[in-house]
Amino acid sequence: MQFHAIIPAGGAGTRLWPLSRRTCPKFLADLTGCGRTLLQQTVDRLQPIAQTITVVTGEAHASAVREQVPDVEVLVEPSARDSMAAIGLAAAVIRQRHGDVVVGSFAADHLISDVAAFHRAVRDACAAADQGYVTTIGITPDSPATGFGYIRASEPIAGLARVLRVQAFAEKPDAQTAREYLASGNYRWNAGMFVARSRVLLDALARFEPQMAADVEAIAVQYDSAEREAVMGQYWPRLKRIAIDHAIAEPLAAAGGVAVVPVEMGWSDVGDFASLRDVIMHDAAAAQQMSDSVIEVGCSGTLAYSQGKPVVVVGVDDAVVVEMDDVIMVTTRRNAQNVKQAPELLSNSDLQFLC
Amino acid sequence: MQFHAIIPAGGAGTRLWPLSRRTCPKFLADLTGCGRTLLQQTVDRLQPIAQTITVVTGEAHASAVREQVPDVEVLVEPSARDSMAAIGLAAAVIRQRHGDVVVGSFAADHLISDVAAFHRAVRDACAAADQGYVTTIGITPDSPATGFGYIRASEPIAGLARVLRVQAFAEKPDAQTAREYLASGNYRWNAGMFVARSRVLLDALARFEPQMAADVEAIAVQYDSAEREAVMGQYWPRLKRIAIDHAIAEPLAAAGGVAVVPVEMGWSDVGDFASLRDVIMHDAAAAQQMSDSVIEVGCSGTLAYSQGKPVVVVGVDDAVVVEMDDVIMVTTRRNAQNVKQAPELLSNSDLQFLC
Repeated sequence: MQFHAIIPAGGAGTRLWPLSRRTCPKFLADLTGCGRTLLQQTVDRLQPIAQTITVVTGEAHASAVREQVPDVEVLVEPSARDSMAAIGLAAAVIRQRHGDVVVGSFAADHLISDVAAFHRAVRDACAAADQGYVTTIGITPDSPATGFGYIRASEPIAGLARVLRVQAFAEKPDAQTAREYLASGNYRWNAGMFVARSRVLLDALARFEPQMAADVEAIAVQYDSAEREAVMGQYWPRLKRIAIDHAIAEPLAAAGGVAVVPVEMGWSDVGDFASLRDVIMHDAAAAQQMSDSVIEVGCSGTLAYSQGKPVVVVGVDDAVVVEMDDVIMVTTRRNAQNVKQAPELLSNSDLQFLC
Repeated sequence: MQFHAIIPAGGAGTRLWPLSRRTCPKFLADLTGCGRTLLQQTVDRLQPIAQTITVVTGEAHASAVREQVPDVEVLVEPSARDSMAAIGLAAAVIRQRHGDVVVGSFAADHLISDVAAFHRAVRDACAAADQGYVTTIGITPDSPATGFGYIRASEPIAGLARVLRVQAFAEKPDAQTAREYLASGNYRWNAGMFVARSRVLLDALARFEPQMAADVEAIAVQYDSAEREAVMGQYWPRLKRIAIDHAIAEPLAAAGGVAVVPVEMGWSDVGDFASLRDVIMHDAAAAQQMSDSVIEVGCSGTLAYSQGKPVVVVGVDDAVVVEMDDVIMVTTRRNAQNVKQAPELLSNSDLQFLC
């Protein structure tokens, strides 16, 4: 069974500013100091199990992507159209080239520490996809997080090991609801991973968003011809801005067509400095590298990035200190969600080049 | 009446680390960005009223002092012996050269915003000194500070305008005592300024510390001869390590020989980042310069020094951020007193070059 990976690489990661910038978004950054960016690590994880890998990204980042991961196919979006357009077109192009194979989409800017568990989950998801399910890989929660959408699973699907039927997708919950989700044991975090036969995915798109399906197909049939630019210019701009979750995963779940592979694999969306620090503290090499450059006086929990300078923190618990070439940012862990306000504020100032 | 100024320039200013370093102590630094260091500003203030200015400093800083204030006499201490030795020797050398003139000693690392008020206070102190008093200039407190020693004054001295008799010196008080001092109206901050006839000062030294007086005199008589190095080498190392306050000001006050000129003149010892921020907030140019490079998101009160980079603070009130060439320090205003622990900690590490 052939498996082809799709990596939509977009999103600014503004809660990780200034590590993540408009000019160098999160997926292009090496946040843990391991020598590989999040995009490179995503490709590294998929390379052993995927026949092809297609990165879908905007024009602004296409050359950086080609430089970081030279061996992958790069599909350049003329403008941002959210994940359904990106994944739909990539799936349609893959079907043109390879037929009705299994495709899987994976975010470019997440981290997974247990790669073997990830590979097992993808294989289980491929088996379910082969049976006709749009299959998501759901993260078993270890806390009542309010920053993720959830997937409500029901019974195991007969004949498929470690695969459950999906009842519904749930939006980011409030704190109380998140605690209930965690206690029930029926919910997994939606990490935005979808695995399906290309025909199943595109049939679902034709069912729920017929115009998108037709336009995507119109591009795909000419994509490997001299007409690529022309059809992209004609059809891409009119594609609906919609996430794959809303476009097909949710309505298809209601119809019983979605499955989930629950997994624990040291996943993180590295969504803000609080989760970045968790990741680093669970990575011995990264933690050592961090502590080598940090001196704490009467405090603990510092997360610091500098251009080689030691960072000394006096009496500020859970400090976050980021020194870039052109700016210094200081905050604390409990302000992690507010960091995105900094580039927002700067975008209206004469310091907008810092965003 | 001749007036000769003495500026003991020592002290590490470790609570302002890393702006103040072993290699570049506070008095050599331009903390307000005005283009003049604290030592230069001290000399600038004294130049219009003093016939000569003598800076007493250690060997490590002598060349930096000569570079910063080329027009002053520099008396180099072979080793640190506290303020009585420094001021005593300078006074003895001045007496050798100029006779029984009025000398006044002033810290090298304080700030005074109202220079006219300072000059008036020095003139009043010179008049009292001329009458035989060791005269201090006492700062009228505007808060119950616990970081300064206090001077308890009693009645005005007949025939001397704006000069009070000193009853006693008081050590740094606890918070309750400081509030009582402030409420009583009888206390001034001891800013370490002493004005006296050279003979009065040296007679007091001979009375309370006779060995020191003899040794200082032995150096002074040879100071301008080829024997300077020899007598410094012989007598300096055995001088007692004692502050002028304890050596002569306190016992002489008990004997009725000390006067105080109370003054309000925008004085600050710039002792830590909290008082440095107060100074900057009261200096329109410095405040503007600071706010030009600081962006605050959901917080206020930032004090930031950088090597030209904007400093963005998210959600941390009263943050203090200092970027030097070789280190970054982050703290908050309420930790101002704890900053000195950083160089202490570093001095025992392989980062001791940062102290």
